[in-house]
Amino acid sequence: MSPPSKAVVYDEQGPPDSVCKVKELPPVPIKDEDVCVRMLAAPINPSDINRIEGVYPVRPPVPAVGGYEGVGEVHSVGSAVLGLRPGDWVIPSPPSSGTWQTYLVKEQSVWHKIDKCTPMEYAATITVNPLTSLRMLEDFVDLKSGDAVVQNGATSIVGQCIIQLARVRGIHSINIIRDRAGSDEVKQKLKKLGADEVFTENQLEVKNVKSLLADIPEPTLGFNCVGGNAASLVLKFLKHGGTMVTYGGMSRKPITVPTSAFIFKDISLRGFWLQKWMSSDKAKECREMIDYLLSLTRSGELKYDMELCPFDEFPTALDKALGKLGSQPKQVIKF
Amino acid sequence: MSPPSKAVVYDEQGPPDSVCKVKELPPVPIKDEDVCVRMLAAPINPSDINRIEGVYPVRPPVPAVGGYEGVGEVHSVGSAVLGLRPGDWVIPSPPSSGTWQTYLVKEQSVWHKIDKCTPMEYAATITVNPLTSLRMLEDFVDLKSGDAVVQNGATSIVGQCIIQLARVRGIHSINIIRDRAGSDEVKQKLKKLGADEVFTENQLEVKNVKSLLADIPEPTLGFNCVGGNAASLVLKFLKHGGTMVTYGGMSRKPITVPTSAFIFKDISLRGFWLQKWMSSDKAKECREMIDYLLSLTRSGELKYDMELCPFDEFPTALDKALGKLGSQPKQVIKF
Repeated sequence: MSPPSKAVVYDEQGPPDSVCKVKELPPVPIKDEDVCVRMLAAPINPSDINRIEGVYPVRPPVPAVGGYEGVGEVHSVGSAVLGLRPGDWVIPSPPSSGTWQTYLVKEQSVWHKIDKCTPMEYAATITVNPLTSLRMLEDFVDLKSGDAVVQNGATSIVGQCIIQLARVRGIHSINIIRDRAGSDEVKQKLKKLGADEVFTENQLEVKNVKSLLADIPEPTLGFNCVGGNAASLVLKFLKHGGTMVTYGGMSRKPITVPTSAFIFKDISLRGFWLQKWMSSDKAKECREMIDYLLSLTRSGELKYDMELCPFDEFPTALDKALGKLGSQPKQVIKF
Repeated sequence: MSPPSKAVVYDEQGPPDSVCKVKELPPVPIKDEDVCVRMLAAPINPSDINRIEGVYPVRPPVPAVGGYEGVGEVHSVGSAVLGLRPGDWVIPSPPSSGTWQTYLVKEQSVWHKIDKCTPMEYAATITVNPLTSLRMLEDFVDLKSGDAVVQNGATSIVGQCIIQLARVRGIHSINIIRDRAGSDEVKQKLKKLGADEVFTENQLEVKNVKSLLADIPEPTLGFNCVGGNAASLVLKFLKHGGTMVTYGGMSRKPITVPTSAFIFKDISLRGFWLQKWMSSDKAKECREMIDYLLSLTRSGELKYDMELCPFDEFPTALDKALGKLGSQPKQVIKF
C-alpha cells in the first residue's frame, strides 16, 4: 500500500478557490506494474484552473485531484517494475492528472525517469509550457538560422521559452508585450533572455510596423496567446505567406482578420494544443524532447520565472495563480 | 497592322462609372510573334472593378483598357505564329489585361486555343470564377467521394461552380445564402444545380448547426467569400481539424474567430487568390484545367447565370455590375 496522501481535491467543477480542498486520502494498493511516487513539486498552470472550472474540453471525472504535471521521487515500486527504483526522479510523460498531492500511484508506463541534477522547479514545469514552445517552433514552418518569429504574450513562460529556444537555433524573435508600468524593465529582461526586439502594443500604433525592424527579416511564423488587438499586431508583422499559430487567448477577445490578409497576403491561421499533439502516439518523441529541454535548463540556456510555494500555503499560491494578487510569477507547489 | 479597336479605357484609377470611357484606339503593329484577336465576349468581374478603382494589389499602369478575361476569334497572325490561324477561338490564359475592346494584339504565348463548340459566354468567363472553384476544391484538403464542403455566398458564380464541381466528384455541398425575398426560389435553383443543403443565415441561428445535417458528414473544407457572420457560420459547420478558405469579402466585414476554434477544434484558416496561383509557373496545368471546365460547360454539367450585353450598352452593364440596379446576373459584354 502507498502512504496516505495529502491532496488538493475538488468534488465538483467550479471556481477553484471555492471547490478545491486540501484533504488526506487513504493509502491505495500498489499493483505489480505500479510505481508510487512522492511528489516533490508541481505547478499551477492556467489549464489546471480551466479543468477545475469545467471549461476545458478534456477533464478528469470528479471527484478529482488537481494538477497535470510535476516531478517526484520514486517511493516504492510494484513487483513487475524493472526500470525504476526508489530514489529515482520521475515526471509523468505525457502529463497525467492528479499531481497536486504528496504521494501518487500510477502504472510504470506513465513515469519518465529524469536526470536528478535538474533543478526541481524546472523538472516540475518542463512539459506544459516549454514543450509547447518547442513544438510550435518545429511543427508549422521550416525555420532556418537567420529567420525570424514574432509573438505576443512574450512575458508568459511559453513566450520566454520561445525567445530562448529560437536563440539556440539562431532564429530572431520579435516580441510584443502589453503596455504596463515598468515595461522598460520587462524589455531589458526579455532582451537578456535573447529577444531581438521587444515592443509594447502602443509602440506598434504606427502605419507600417515593419519599418521598426532594422536588420531582422520579416517573420514567417507568429505566435498568439492573447487575441484581440495583440493578435492583429502579430499578423501585421508577418511576411507574405506567413503563418500565425494561436495557443492561448489571455485577453478573452477573439481574433479578427481582414479578408485581404488571407487573399492578398496569403496568411495562414492555425492552432496548437499540446494535449492533442501528445495524444497522437508521440510518447517516445515527447520524452526525447523533454530530455533535450531539461538539458537546456541544466546548462542555463533555458530559464523562466517561477515562485516556489510550500504546500501548506496552497490557498495563497492558488490566489496568485488566479490573478487575485496582481501579476505574479508561475506558482510551483513544493510538497 | 491591326484594325482600329473600340475599347473601354480609363486614364486614371477611380470610380469605374466616371473614369471609364469608350474610345477608338488607333491600329497597332502586329509583330512576328503576335496574334490579333477580334474579341467576342468578356465579363465584368468584381476584380476588374477593383483594378479600375485602384484597390487591387496588382493592376496595370494607366492609361489602361479594362477587362482581364474573355474569348475572341483570331483575326490575323504574325509571320512566326504557327499554332493559331484566323478563325480559331482563343482565350488569354493565364488571363491578361485589356479584354474590353474589339481587337486585342498580344504575343502568341498569351493565347490558348479552345473548342469552338463552347458556348461563347462560358468561354469568356471560364477562368476567373470556375477555375477558382476547381482549385479550391483541389488544393487544400484531400477530399474523397462522400465527403462534404460548406460555403457561404453560394449564389455567386464561384459558389454555383463549387456546387456542381463537387457533385461531379460525389462530394456533398452545404450552402449558406443571405436572407432575402425569394430565398425559397434561390434554394430550389441551387438544389437543381446539385446543392445538398441550402440554408439562409437566419436559419442557422441555432445552438448546434450540425444538428441540421441529416445524412451529410461534417464538412472538412469550407469556403468564405462574405466575411462577418457568414464566415462564422462556415466555421460552425466545420469538422474538427477542418480548413476554411477565404477568397472574397463581399460584406466588407472582417473574419472573427474565437480562440477555442484554433486550439480545441484545430481549425485552419487559409486564403486563395487565383492570380497568385497562376503566376507560379502553372500555365500548362492551368490550360488543362480550363479545357476540362469547358468540356463540362459543353456537356451541361457546369452552368451559371450570366447576362449578355451588347458593347453599345456598356454603361448599363457596368451599372449592373456595380450593383446600382439591384441584384443582377454576371454581365458579359458581347462585342
